[in-house]
Amino acid sequence: MTMINVVKIGGNVINDPAALSQFLDAFVRIEGPKVLVHGGGREATVISKALGIETVMIEGRRVTDARTLDVVTMVYAGLINKRIVAALQARGCNAIGLSGADGALIRSQRRPAEPFDFGFVGDLTADSVDAVLLRSMSAQGLTPVVCAITYGGDGQLLNTNADSVATAVAQALAHNGGATLTFCFEMPGVMADIKRADSVISDITPADFVALKEAGVVAGGMIPKLQGALNAVAGGVAAVKITHHTLLDNPSAGTTIHL
Amino acid sequence: MTMINVVKIGGNVINDPAALSQFLDAFVRIEGPKVLVHGGGREATVISKALGIETVMIEGRRVTDARTLDVVTMVYAGLINKRIVAALQARGCNAIGLSGADGALIRSQRRPAEPFDFGFVGDLTADSVDAVLLRSMSAQGLTPVVCAITYGGDGQLLNTNADSVATAVAQALAHNGGATLTFCFEMPGVMADIKRADSVISDITPADFVALKEAGVVAGGMIPKLQGALNAVAGGVAAVKITHHTLLDNPSAGTTIHL
Repeated sequence: MTMINVVKIGGNVINDPAALSQFLDAFVRIEGPKVLVHGGGREATVISKALGIETVMIEGRRVTDARTLDVVTMVYAGLINKRIVAALQARGCNAIGLSGADGALIRSQRRPAEPFDFGFVGDLTADSVDAVLLRSMSAQGLTPVVCAITYGGDGQLLNTNADSVATAVAQALAHNGGATLTFCFEMPGVMADIKRADSVISDITPADFVALKEAGVVAGGMIPKLQGALNAVAGGVAAVKITHHTLLDNPSAGTTIHL
Repeated sequence: MTMINVVKIGGNVINDPAALSQFLDAFVRIEGPKVLVHGGGREATVISKALGIETVMIEGRRVTDARTLDVVTMVYAGLINKRIVAALQARGCNAIGLSGADGALIRSQRRPAEPFDFGFVGDLTADSVDAVLLRSMSAQGLTPVVCAITYGGDGQLLNTNADSVATAVAQALAHNGGATLTFCFEMPGVMADIKRADSVISDITPADFVALKEAGVVAGGMIPKLQGALNAVAGGVAAVKITHHTLLDNPSAGTTIHL
């Protein structure tokens, strides 16, 4: 079967219409079947605030009560997903937007309430993603655009980390014909010096990751992102990259994560 | 090819969780392939108000400026669509939520600005709906759940009347293997006396419609609904019904529209 390119786009790019447009231009240049995974946190925060719902974050993760789940479902699965789908249609890419409930594409488990109750938040397992459904859509010429709202069973939608969704989608496709995974954001890759655009680290192995973490070169939000990338490689994904949102189709740009 | 049952559910049922649950119970009892079409106006009005956006209605139709389009996209394609999809999954029905942009399922034309500019509102034509895509999903065991956000081309989403979407979907499927169409709402059918539940008119032909309109028996929102039903029958839909949301699987309930 054909290799499928899974691409994750981050919230900072989604929130910037010009950057999103550049990203989508680059995304449609990727040849062959592909899947786009997106989050969209900041817009949910703005709408929550307008609706008088307080946003609570613990370790960078959104605490999701019932009203917040409604907001993220509206914003991720509705506003952002359909905006991206329409913009891809305009570029000649036959996109189809999906949440994890659609076709039961992504089943998650509600996170345990201990040590902290994140509310309606779902975690993924190795067999969460229905790769057969994604392959079937690709075979019909459709490009799935997947938001980070997953299906917890019993009619329950769950808010899920978009990087984790991208990793799970790529792993499921890797076990079903092969997949690559590209995390796109507003930076040129993993950088040795955050202030120098020319300091991109071109290759990172698990041993490099430990050393970079100990040296404090990778920190904050980059740690779970790299951990997810390493998990994806360990899980059979052929190639994992972290790269700039306008350079995702440039093989020499960004950081490649491998074993 | 198999006949597909197209079912439209109205806003008053969607806004009442108990009624929606009863409707979905009845919907899953329908045997064979089916498509659900929904609107969801009132929730959009509530959220618009909370966001400080004034709702303007002209002849019962929502004037849709750019911010209102964002709200209806969020509410129809996000909140309501995914809520219904998850509730159908819980009932063992493998639902997949779609807007008109997804897979370019429903292409519309922006309504002319004269005599009145409704803003980002789309009207449908005879070939707006991709029946092949709906049939392909049905053949895969998926049940499409279609919201009334359509694709106007050039990356533009358009707000569209949900009754019109249901009629266009049924007509397209009628020309591609056969379809029935059922409009479900909180009333038992078209009634001779709105105060008497036992006054349901069991059959309406085009001639009956003219007579009922002249006698003032049908009025208000029932006129476009019946006009749409008659158009659907004229357009090749095998059977059109207007019935109660809990009785859609009961062949002797409601009003049947035929030539």
